[in-house]
Amino acid sequence: MDSIFAKRRGALKEALCEAGFGALLISSPATRYYYSGFELHDPQPNESAGHLLIAANGDDWLCTDARYLDAARRLWDPGRIFIYSAAPFTSMGEFFNGRFSKPVGFEAKTLSLAAWEGLSGALKGCELRRADGLADRFRLRKDEDEISRMRRSCALNQQMLEWLPSQWGGEPSETELAWAVERYFREHGASELAFASIVAYGPNAALPHAIPSPVVRVLPGGPLLADVGCRVDGYCSDQTRTFWIGEKPADHFRRALELTQEAQKRAIALIRPGVRACDVYAAAWEYFAAHGVEKAFTHGLGHGVGLETHEGPSLNGRNTSPLEAGMIVTVEPGLYYPEWGGVRWEHMVLVTEDGAEIL
Amino acid sequence: MDSIFAKRRGALKEALCEAGFGALLISSPATRYYYSGFELHDPQPNESAGHLLIAANGDDWLCTDARYLDAARRLWDPGRIFIYSAAPFTSMGEFFNGRFSKPVGFEAKTLSLAAWEGLSGALKGCELRRADGLADRFRLRKDEDEISRMRRSCALNQQMLEWLPSQWGGEPSETELAWAVERYFREHGASELAFASIVAYGPNAALPHAIPSPVVRVLPGGPLLADVGCRVDGYCSDQTRTFWIGEKPADHFRRALELTQEAQKRAIALIRPGVRACDVYAAAWEYFAAHGVEKAFTHGLGHGVGLETHEGPSLNGRNTSPLEAGMIVTVEPGLYYPEWGGVRWEHMVLVTEDGAEIL
Repeated sequence: MDSIFAKRRGALKEALCEAGFGALLISSPATRYYYSGFELHDPQPNESAGHLLIAANGDDWLCTDARYLDAARRLWDPGRIFIYSAAPFTSMGEFFNGRFSKPVGFEAKTLSLAAWEGLSGALKGCELRRADGLADRFRLRKDEDEISRMRRSCALNQQMLEWLPSQWGGEPSETELAWAVERYFREHGASELAFASIVAYGPNAALPHAIPSPVVRVLPGGPLLADVGCRVDGYCSDQTRTFWIGEKPADHFRRALELTQEAQKRAIALIRPGVRACDVYAAAWEYFAAHGVEKAFTHGLGHGVGLETHEGPSLNGRNTSPLEAGMIVTVEPGLYYPEWGGVRWEHMVLVTEDGAEIL
Repeated sequence: MDSIFAKRRGALKEALCEAGFGALLISSPATRYYYSGFELHDPQPNESAGHLLIAANGDDWLCTDARYLDAARRLWDPGRIFIYSAAPFTSMGEFFNGRFSKPVGFEAKTLSLAAWEGLSGALKGCELRRADGLADRFRLRKDEDEISRMRRSCALNQQMLEWLPSQWGGEPSETELAWAVERYFREHGASELAFASIVAYGPNAALPHAIPSPVVRVLPGGPLLADVGCRVDGYCSDQTRTFWIGEKPADHFRRALELTQEAQKRAIALIRPGVRACDVYAAAWEYFAAHGVEKAFTHGLGHGVGLETHEGPSLNGRNTSPLEAGMIVTVEPGLYYPEWGGVRWEHMVLVTEDGAEIL
């Protein structure tokens, strides 16, 4: 088992030893996949495909139900698969009871109260202790395997965005255009959308959670904002472009676009290891403020992206953590005007050893 | 606000009064949607689109973040929308602190330990008490509005399954066929798949969690199992058919199909209000046992279906609860043989006042 997953588990095991844990339970689907390759998705919100138990020393276990046994065997030592009963957490707690003298860690944001009660009731021999962020922090810096997957995901996104303007002709509805986007992604190698596409025309472009409408048609004379992403080889891409539909862009659109792109350029120019996330945000905000439009910039500047569309680090005004090489963040300034819509422009940016690379 | 959602909240409020709760926090996406029409999906597993606080007496609140304000206003009293900060549960706890003298209920399977700690730390004036299943139990019996949506979802599923055999011609891979299924659903009115399609040919048909393969081609001379569902008007359908590809079905396939369909028929014949779920399961199992094939029937007989693909009631051997009018369950016996595949046949069945109706 010399896979990339085993390598990641190796790094986590060291961290568990250092932090004094006997083991760590991983229940979040994306983190489970990161350390095992097993099932990137749970079947539905209240149903799990499985859990990992990573031991600081010794064997790691993949715990799942009988449905997934075949899938589990294809990528995990069959002797280290635990099939749980109808009460998974009690069942896991009983199975691991007495195996660890040091605390078993868990993630308090992932484990439900009922799960925690089931586990702690059954794991009588040892303490169940919060280990928030311990497994996830390794996901912040992407390894070579991840970066190459992210490149492929981003390249398909780019290719789709170059193709997209060919679709204005039929004056499609937002819904029709969103479906055209999804079809393009799926028929060119994506396993799914990374998130529900935002395809918003005119005033809808000003809405942060615009849902494509079947009655709003994309006609000459207005802006179209496309904030779209696909998943390729497990990894998400997320990009936004705002197009002017028709011949001559309105002046208000041109100005908003120029300001947004310049703000983005200044923010990206700042990105390198050691720079604080909040300072990257500030570079965009201050540029907008210098032009008196900062009130129209209503959200953070960006977020990490990887196995999930939204992950750390967040590029907002409060995050004082420094950027690190290997992080991939979106940089997506925008200016919004409820009367006519708005503009957002988004790149995915890899923090390199000495600067930044737009993917 | 005389909507179907308000009517459902009315029934829940009565139940809250009876059980001695001051209010109930609803965090599960499907249940939130059931009582409000707001956002059937969370954006990703570790991110919520919002929460409902249903009061036993008085105003109900929709709690969300600023992204969703516009969507919330379209279907909820704008004076009863609470926009929370970056720490949603602490923020909600502080907002509701002192408003209720009776306990505030929550669902222990839905609320994370971190969320529970945030809420209980901030809600100092009153007890936070488990109310497991209190809101969900109303979802077991579908109302008229839900039944008509389920009929539309099931009808599209049916229509797709009738069209599907037209696709064998090009000897597609499982993956290609799965994408054809998804495209058909989406281009005929479905908003999405209800679950990842199982399109499994030959021995793959024996796997409970078969993932469509790009290299397995659907050729004459084997079985193709299609377990597929779409979402229409918010509601899921779930049906399975097993086709023989090619001219003359093999004898082992014919026999498995006949036994499966007869087991299904016997189980459905038993369905009516008051009959225990386990007895419906037993009808299928006993028929298989009488023919010596019960070991090849490796899963439960079915499950409730509605806003989620898997919901209550479960038709398994342990569920002694009686069926009730308005429940919609799948009835999906199957026989599996790793050497050549298997057969599953699935209908969606509405429990009527005096019997059952296949949708």
